[in-house]
Amino acid sequence: MQNPESLDQWLERAGRDFLAHISLDCVVFGFHAGQLKILLLKMKHEDSRALPGGFVMNQETMEEAAIRVLQERTGLENVFLQQYQVFSEVTRSDPAARPLSLQRAGISIEKAKFLAQRFISVGFYALVEFSKVVPRPDLLSDTCDWYNLEDRGPLILDHERILESALAVLRTQLNHQPVGYNLLPRKFTLPELQKLYEAILGRKLDRRNFQRKIFSYGILRSLDEKRMGGAHKAPNLYSFDLRKYQQALKGGLTGGWK
Amino acid sequence: MQNPESLDQWLERAGRDFLAHISLDCVVFGFHAGQLKILLLKMKHEDSRALPGGFVMNQETMEEAAIRVLQERTGLENVFLQQYQVFSEVTRSDPAARPLSLQRAGISIEKAKFLAQRFISVGFYALVEFSKVVPRPDLLSDTCDWYNLEDRGPLILDHERILESALAVLRTQLNHQPVGYNLLPRKFTLPELQKLYEAILGRKLDRRNFQRKIFSYGILRSLDEKRMGGAHKAPNLYSFDLRKYQQALKGGLTGGWK
Repeated sequence: MQNPESLDQWLERAGRDFLAHISLDCVVFGFHAGQLKILLLKMKHEDSRALPGGFVMNQETMEEAAIRVLQERTGLENVFLQQYQVFSEVTRSDPAARPLSLQRAGISIEKAKFLAQRFISVGFYALVEFSKVVPRPDLLSDTCDWYNLEDRGPLILDHERILESALAVLRTQLNHQPVGYNLLPRKFTLPELQKLYEAILGRKLDRRNFQRKIFSYGILRSLDEKRMGGAHKAPNLYSFDLRKYQQALKGGLTGGWK
Repeated sequence: MQNPESLDQWLERAGRDFLAHISLDCVVFGFHAGQLKILLLKMKHEDSRALPGGFVMNQETMEEAAIRVLQERTGLENVFLQQYQVFSEVTRSDPAARPLSLQRAGISIEKAKFLAQRFISVGFYALVEFSKVVPRPDLLSDTCDWYNLEDRGPLILDHERILESALAVLRTQLNHQPVGYNLLPRKFTLPELQKLYEAILGRKLDRRNFQRKIFSYGILRSLDEKRMGGAHKAPNLYSFDLRKYQQALKGGLTGGWK
């Protein structure tokens, strides 16, 4: 087990170990009890929350850095992770705001110099199985936890925009690719799959339209099992037909050009 | 008119005016005489070619930097430009290679320090109307010109990968979004549109399948005009129905979830 590093120690080495000007932020989506959830950090000495994020080591690719950050925050080794957009507004991090909040934490601007520079941030989104995540805060935060999308509250810097953009990408993806393999347990019911689609889209879907469309893609495999223990009649269980799911990821749901 | 800047002058100010570690590369696609074309620079003192690229000024967003670079290389003010991937392999630019080629150009490693650092590059692709581009080389290159995709020859650094990734994005896009508005003149024939799709996909398509599918999307408007001057019977001219084209860009070709 590594000795836990203090924020002071981290700040002291940050300028040597990480590339200047480049950061990453991760929008981590999970799905639980019919709700789309996101993983957020509660910042020390601030009311607002933050997306998990970090910096790129001198000998790391962006992807390796994102995998490391997510591993640190979720405990997961293998995560579906996708780069989706670079956020580079000059005003995205108010140069004054970050050192101020560090000052409140008793850290001098001189020491926090690495954090005070302009960062261009690469946005990643991750789709994870909710039940497998063990959230852990970082050096700048008190807690790391799941939040319902609509109960997220105010986010720091431009993290609201980074989150909204990830949601927009996921919604667009629903129109031409299957979604769900990384967010649902291996076996699920049709109402559960529909609830996931509804949670991503933020609106109700017609049950019949949904089932007709999702079956037409041929990505579902009906299992010879039913969900036990509910109050109502036991619904059928399904899993994804992985071969056809992968094909649809590559060729799109319209089947490509011939 | 600005005074032309020398490479020496540019290198002298680069470290002050541009963010460290962040670059951008642009894959500029055009379509002419049934061929997909890309814009490449022929490097000074090197046999290989390069994608147009550049760096980010202290007060610029990534997009503003890409627009500036493309304006300098093509003369175009309004270009369809899309960020699509970040390239961050640690080995992507051999730290020794760039200064060596500069030494051949008579420029010392000390002066070229800015270019010798590790760069993480944001890839953009642009779709432009071939006939409107006036290609112009940059300070590191002799020429800037259109090349047929298959005649591009060897490219510097990881530019081959950056190009292939842009092509892959464009091909995937063909499966769920209309493509062509930025690449074709306002009026075009169905065979011209099919040739564009074939050039992007790198293979022949069946004429009937193509026409059935492209008409089913409802994005074409048949014009009451024919292409004159050909040897064969004059083919009908079409244009895109911009309202429906935009809808299909947003909702995808499958029409979204209801």
